[in-house]
Amino acid sequence: MERQANSLRLPVKAERTIIRYRAGEFIETQNDVVATEYALTIYVNDHEMATIVCSPEYMEDLVVGFLASEGVIRSIDQIQDIQLSTFRGTARVRTSTAVNFNQEFYNKRYIASCCGKSRQSFYFYNDAHTAKKVEDLAVIFPDSIFRLIDEMEKSADVFHETGGVHVACLADAERLLLARADIGRHNALDKLFGHALKNNISLRGKVITFSGRLSSEVVLKVAKIGVGVVLAKSAPTALALDIADELNITTVGFVRGDSFNIYTHPERVSSSFG
Amino acid sequence: MERQANSLRLPVKAERTIIRYRAGEFIETQNDVVATEYALTIYVNDHEMATIVCSPEYMEDLVVGFLASEGVIRSIDQIQDIQLSTFRGTARVRTSTAVNFNQEFYNKRYIASCCGKSRQSFYFYNDAHTAKKVEDLAVIFPDSIFRLIDEMEKSADVFHETGGVHVACLADAERLLLARADIGRHNALDKLFGHALKNNISLRGKVITFSGRLSSEVVLKVAKIGVGVVLAKSAPTALALDIADELNITTVGFVRGDSFNIYTHPERVSSSFG
Repeated sequence: MERQANSLRLPVKAERTIIRYRAGEFIETQNDVVATEYALTIYVNDHEMATIVCSPEYMEDLVVGFLASEGVIRSIDQIQDIQLSTFRGTARVRTSTAVNFNQEFYNKRYIASCCGKSRQSFYFYNDAHTAKKVEDLAVIFPDSIFRLIDEMEKSADVFHETGGVHVACLADAERLLLARADIGRHNALDKLFGHALKNNISLRGKVITFSGRLSSEVVLKVAKIGVGVVLAKSAPTALALDIADELNITTVGFVRGDSFNIYTHPERVSSSFG
Repeated sequence: MERQANSLRLPVKAERTIIRYRAGEFIETQNDVVATEYALTIYVNDHEMATIVCSPEYMEDLVVGFLASEGVIRSIDQIQDIQLSTFRGTARVRTSTAVNFNQEFYNKRYIASCCGKSRQSFYFYNDAHTAKKVEDLAVIFPDSIFRLIDEMEKSADVFHETGGVHVACLADAERLLLARADIGRHNALDKLFGHALKNNISLRGKVITFSGRLSSEVVLKVAKIGVGVVLAKSAPTALALDIADELNITTVGFVRGDSFNIYTHPERVSSSFG
């Protein structure tokens, strides 16, 4: 198997300037380290197979492992050559024997050009068509941030009993309105969205709380729902923050104890302590 | 919008008999509650669109939210009718106006019949072709279980710095051999698999440790890699356990402090304390 090492090395983490709130005070422009997110499209013998969203390290191993676990290759000897282009976000694999995969079972890539800052922001087709800048001007106070996360934690008994689900809640600036749990992180958000649509609930001034990590896909969902503030217990990724910045979403992460971090659009978090 | 409520109500959690290890002792056949996992295939005007893996509650909201966030519908009024069949795992949506989606961008469903216990075990095409029973007879001691999880926690600095990635490690019964971090849970496992294949590392007697939840997809990956023991810090889902049972994989979860749970195939965990 030939190897190509002529690709740029990509960072798996990035620094972001954040506002940290702790024990009643805002501390501005502290630097925080977040994980990067990278879309890699795999071509096998010139056919586009799938796009994987990954941390950009050990990508050749990732491609080999993916092809083997999907059953596209049965042995490493079948791989003649892998050309990794970190600039294009592609891995082109040549195999020595014919291989089969059914394109119907994989996601195709689509890079939209509508997102200025980060070329990779929208890697799946429909994201580019349905995610729009959020114009909502909701304002939230630090007290409410802690209260809503606390209420979310108490809301979902499946969450506590099984330890195996994500929870997303729709709230106004004062209290939770709706809590949904799901083993799939996006599903919990889609369940909120579906409920709001069916019941004609206005999303003006609303807030979403989320139990897990803020990945790019979570932030995109929040934008599609049309809510301007997302609060999470966990960390965001760098790409999620680029998208949130672009789509005008306030992201608050690591809400724990008496502190939280504001990553993007802090103008919606009131410093007047409600 | 017409609603169909003629579907069976499905459980979002299930009881499983486990072996709990605590403070040096095995306590047999305690009942534990785990989250269920359910594959729902969405048809729009008789065209198969996508399969979502979800917790089986609020599924109509999920379908509506999914279609809206994917841009298939622009307004709730476009939905004429949703027929949910929990028996078949399908949601058939009829819209009043023509809608467009590009099937190329979604995963198609494939139900394989090779898994006896759980009709839903293999919902994506390639899983049925590449996941096989693991014949490996690795044995692991309780001491090693704690040590390997502890080493995993210390291994990945991106993990600690960013709080935003999953970690998977390949180990023998004594120590970690390889640690990989990724924002995508499957990718961390594929990176291990690719490395092992490229470097011709035997997977006999090996163990995989994982920082996150044991979903069905994680257990399937472990089976594809061909490793018989998986140790996780977090909870498994019910479907993951059905698959592990079927594919002969030992699953150990909630490894924390001085305790852990053995969910399936306890015969690989030695009670002789190494």
